[in-house]
Amino acid sequence: MTPAEARAICRNGPPRPTAGMARGFTQCNMISLPRDWAWDFLLFAQRNPKPCPVLDVTDPGSHVTALAPDADLRRDIPLYRIWRDGVLAQETPDATDAWAEHPDLVSFLIGCSFTFEAGLLAAGIPVAHVEQGCNVPMYLTDRECRPAGRLSGRMVVSMRPIPADRVSEAVMISGRMPAVHGAPVHVGDPATLGITDLSRPDFGDPVAIEPGQVPVFWACGVTPQAAVMASRPPFAITHAPGHMFITDTPDTRWQT
Amino acid sequence: MTPAEARAICRNGPPRPTAGMARGFTQCNMISLPRDWAWDFLLFAQRNPKPCPVLDVTDPGSHVTALAPDADLRRDIPLYRIWRDGVLAQETPDATDAWAEHPDLVSFLIGCSFTFEAGLLAAGIPVAHVEQGCNVPMYLTDRECRPAGRLSGRMVVSMRPIPADRVSEAVMISGRMPAVHGAPVHVGDPATLGITDLSRPDFGDPVAIEPGQVPVFWACGVTPQAAVMASRPPFAITHAPGHMFITDTPDTRWQT
Repeated sequence: MTPAEARAICRNGPPRPTAGMARGFTQCNMISLPRDWAWDFLLFAQRNPKPCPVLDVTDPGSHVTALAPDADLRRDIPLYRIWRDGVLAQETPDATDAWAEHPDLVSFLIGCSFTFEAGLLAAGIPVAHVEQGCNVPMYLTDRECRPAGRLSGRMVVSMRPIPADRVSEAVMISGRMPAVHGAPVHVGDPATLGITDLSRPDFGDPVAIEPGQVPVFWACGVTPQAAVMASRPPFAITHAPGHMFITDTPDTRWQT
Repeated sequence: MTPAEARAICRNGPPRPTAGMARGFTQCNMISLPRDWAWDFLLFAQRNPKPCPVLDVTDPGSHVTALAPDADLRRDIPLYRIWRDGVLAQETPDATDAWAEHPDLVSFLIGCSFTFEAGLLAAGIPVAHVEQGCNVPMYLTDRECRPAGRLSGRMVVSMRPIPADRVSEAVMISGRMPAVHGAPVHVGDPATLGITDLSRPDFGDPVAIEPGQVPVFWACGVTPQAAVMASRPPFAITHAPGHMFITDTPDTRWQT
């Protein structure tokens, strides 16, 4: 499946998560904000590059990205979320109408953990939520992001249980890809991140942790959505979790 | 010499290049622009991360950076350049007065090749301009940066002649540090970068290339100054080439 074929399915078919589609090509988180909020967001991302690695930014009002020049950012994500004053107002498979409300939207495309997960899987490191067929568990930590203008919020992390003898390798493989969250922010002991119960994630699904496995935490691209909820810009469009934007850009581009 | 001691020398002494001062700590390029131009610049940097790796951005009007909380960005660089309408208007060791003209300046601190040069030298790879006691040669290429708003310009590269059998290692050592320009953008054949005569650099000093050495080109932090010259913002403050801002941040922080 080519990225263009995958986007056609996302555009025309019923909403579906994009995990496993167009393997080898980068999938992205997206957040679109009115131009008046774009500076605050880009600065927030610069100051918090692990949760918010920006891969591309559109010009105001444009729905075209250099990561996939033929794509339409208003329609090629399978499911969008429309936010009003920091509150989730609607989920929709086509954001064209919402986009038209704010003709100066600036869209940010942000790296996604799918890219480094491909590296983990290629190395034979088990990824629990893939094996268990569910979404990755995500947690709102007690770590404040460095604020920028009107934007602030706490860091969201994703968690993958890794066998103790593969933790180093998982760190190194993901660490080679700083543009897609990079190395973990925390290894073991959820309590010191402010996480009290791994079986109750704030987003996504819980996964089983087997004996001999260590919970490993990566900065997560849902952090911008948490910042939107905390900071209440008047309007925002994002992807729905797991329903990503599929680019024409090979995952290997982000390897350093 | 601690970073604070080095900054005191830069602040109080006569202007001097900062190469070799406070070894092991990150030195930065700086550009300060009126708030009205800050979005264009941060977007330009996001779109051209190899020449413009942003390490920190101040709040408007602030002269404090998280990279060195006790420093004063108006005075702690040994020599500043003041730009008016894209033209170099003045060089001064103290930019406090210039700063006061535009109380909403946003300052960008940008990674510098000194950081990866330390890695090359530690590996025993010869660095010609260090051995020859001069400034690194820099060239304006024919490669257009990806523009952002009102900002555009061609990429500037620095050149280091590397022995053919050490080129791979030089690529890998610098490639591990994407926040300080990362891997080279070009190895060998200056003509295909639009460089006609290596002995006549556009900035810095020429260096001798020994038999068996290959000219290796890295994206250069002078690119923003070239963009300022090409794009003519009404006002800008930058460091003078080679006269960098010394931070409290260890070079190792940028290693991935």
